[in-house]
Amino acid sequence: MVTKFINPVQEQLGEVEARMRSRLNGNPSGLITVLDQFVRLGGKRVRPTLTILVGKMLGADFDRLLDLAAAIEMLHTATLIHDDLVDDASLRRGARTINATWPPAASVLAGDLVFAIAANLAADTKSVRVMEMFAETLAVIVNGEIAYLFDDRAAFDREAYYRWIYAKTASMFELATGAAAILSSAREEEISSARQFGREIGMAFQIVDDVLDFTGAQADIGKPVGNDLRQGTITLPTLHYHENCPDDPDMLSVIRRNGHDQESLDRLIAAINDSDAIDQSISEARVFIRSGLEALAVFPDTQERQALEELSRYILKRHK
Amino acid sequence: MVTKFINPVQEQLGEVEARMRSRLNGNPSGLITVLDQFVRLGGKRVRPTLTILVGKMLGADFDRLLDLAAAIEMLHTATLIHDDLVDDASLRRGARTINATWPPAASVLAGDLVFAIAANLAADTKSVRVMEMFAETLAVIVNGEIAYLFDDRAAFDREAYYRWIYAKTASMFELATGAAAILSSAREEEISSARQFGREIGMAFQIVDDVLDFTGAQADIGKPVGNDLRQGTITLPTLHYHENCPDDPDMLSVIRRNGHDQESLDRLIAAINDSDAIDQSISEARVFIRSGLEALAVFPDTQERQALEELSRYILKRHK
Repeated sequence: MVTKFINPVQEQLGEVEARMRSRLNGNPSGLITVLDQFVRLGGKRVRPTLTILVGKMLGADFDRLLDLAAAIEMLHTATLIHDDLVDDASLRRGARTINATWPPAASVLAGDLVFAIAANLAADTKSVRVMEMFAETLAVIVNGEIAYLFDDRAAFDREAYYRWIYAKTASMFELATGAAAILSSAREEEISSARQFGREIGMAFQIVDDVLDFTGAQADIGKPVGNDLRQGTITLPTLHYHENCPDDPDMLSVIRRNGHDQESLDRLIAAINDSDAIDQSISEARVFIRSGLEALAVFPDTQERQALEELSRYILKRHK
Repeated sequence: MVTKFINPVQEQLGEVEARMRSRLNGNPSGLITVLDQFVRLGGKRVRPTLTILVGKMLGADFDRLLDLAAAIEMLHTATLIHDDLVDDASLRRGARTINATWPPAASVLAGDLVFAIAANLAADTKSVRVMEMFAETLAVIVNGEIAYLFDDRAAFDREAYYRWIYAKTASMFELATGAAAILSSAREEEISSARQFGREIGMAFQIVDDVLDFTGAQADIGKPVGNDLRQGTITLPTLHYHENCPDDPDMLSVIRRNGHDQESLDRLIAAINDSDAIDQSISEARVFIRSGLEALAVFPDTQERQALEELSRYILKRHK
C-alpha cells in the first residue's frame, strides 16, 4: 500500500513500529522472537496511518499520537493472533501463523501479551477518554466474534453481515480516527465526524476485502479464491448472489449445508465471481466511502485531509 | 473464606458481582451463559475484598472503588480462563472448565471478552494511573506465564520460583491494594505501603497454595494430591526437599525427567509431605505475612485495617 498518501507519514510509521517492538524487549523467550518478527513483517499499517493523519490534521500532541498509533496497531495484531488460532488459519502476512507452528498455548499467550502491550501504550496517551474508547472497541470486536461463531447462523442476513463487519473491522478504524481526534482536543462535532469517517471507510474496507476473496488472484491475496465461502463464511457478494439467483441449487446446498461437494462449491464461487453480485457489492462500498468523505469534508483542506481522501479512494481501487 | 473479615464487605461484594455480571448482558450467545455461571460461582473473592478494605480504609470514592474491585476480579477471571486452556485443566471452582466442554476458540474468546470487560471497568475509575497500573500488571502476568512455559526449565531455582509467583499471584494482589490507594488520593508513601502490603501477602498466599497442593485433602482442593509435581511443576516444598535430600533417587528422576514412573512420583510426593520441607515453606510464607503486616502498620488502626490484618493471618491458617 505504498502510494502517495503514505509518504507524509512514512517516517512516523517507522517510529510507531519502533515503539511497538521496544515493548517486546525484556522477555528472552523464543516466542518473543517470533512475535517480534510478526510485528516487523507488519501489514498494510492502514490503522496507524489513519491515526497519524487525523492527529496531524487536528494538531494532536505528537508523542502521544505515536503511542496511540502503536497501541491501535498492537490491538489489531493481538486480535489477528487470536483469530488465527480460532480460525485455525495457517498463513498470515505471507508467513506461517503462530498457531500453525506452536502449540495453542503460544498463540493464547502471545495474543494476551500483545493485548497487554496495547493497553500499556494506550495508557501512555494519558487520556481517560482514549482508554475508554479503546476498551469499548475491544469489547465490540470480541462480542462480534462470539456472536458470529456461537450464534445461530441460520439468521445470517445483510443486517447481520453489517453488524459483523462493523465489529470486525470498522470499529477499529473508528477507534483509529476517533481517538486521534480526542487526543487533539477537537470539538465534540469534530470528534464525531472523525469517528464517522473512520467507521464508514472501515465498512468499505471490509466489503472490498470480501470482494477480493472472490476476485483476487490467489497469489495476491495469499489464500485460495473463494476461501471465505469454502470455510462456510457468507459475505456480501454471496448475499447479493443469493438475492439475485435464489434458486441456484449450488447456493441452496451451501445454505442448507447438506454435504455440498467440492465441485458444487467451485461452480458457485465461479458463478458469484461472474455475476452482478461483485459490482453490487462494490457499489455498496462506494456508498460508504462517499459518506466517509462527506464526514471528512468538515475539516480544513490540508495536506493531511487530502492524504485521507486519497487513502479512502484507494480502498475502492484495491479490487481492480 | 467466609470469616469475620469478610463481614464488613459482604454487601459490597454482592454489588461487585452485580457489576461484573451486568457487563455480560447484551450478547445472547450460549457462551455468555456459561461465562455468567463462572462469574457467579466465584472464587474466594480475596482480591476485591482487599480492594474494598484498602479503599474504605483510605477514603476512596465508593462508586469508583466498586468498579475497580470488579475490574480486578474480571482481570483475574480472564487469566484463569486462558490459563485453564493453556494448562489443559478440566476442573475449576468445582465445575468443568470452559476448555473441557467447548472447543479452544470458546476459551480464547471468553477470556478476551472478560479482559475487555475488565478494561472497561478499569476505565470507569477515570484514573489514568489506575489504568496504567492495570496494564502493567497484565503485562507482568503474561510475561511471567510465557517465561515459565517457554523458557529453559533446567534453571528453575528459588529465585525463578519467586519471580514466577510474583507474576502469577502477588502482582495482582499488589494491584488490588495499590490501585485502591491510588483511587483514594493517598500520599505516595501510603500508596507504596499499600502496594507492598498486597505484594507480600500475595507471595504468602501462593506459597500456602503450593503447600496445600501437597498437604490438602483431595476433596478440599479439588485436585489429586501433589498435582503440581505430577504436572511437572516445581514449587517451594519441592525446592526445599531437594535442598534437604539432594540424593533422593525419586527426586533426581523427576528433575532429570527420565521417565519417572507413577510409583516413584507417589513415593516422592509422600516423602515431601512428611518432610521438613512443608514447615520450611510455611515459615517463608510467615515471613512474607509479617512484612506485609509491617507495611500495613503505617495506616491508622481502623476496623478495615483490623480486617486486613485478620485476612493476612488467615492466609497462613489455610494450610491447617
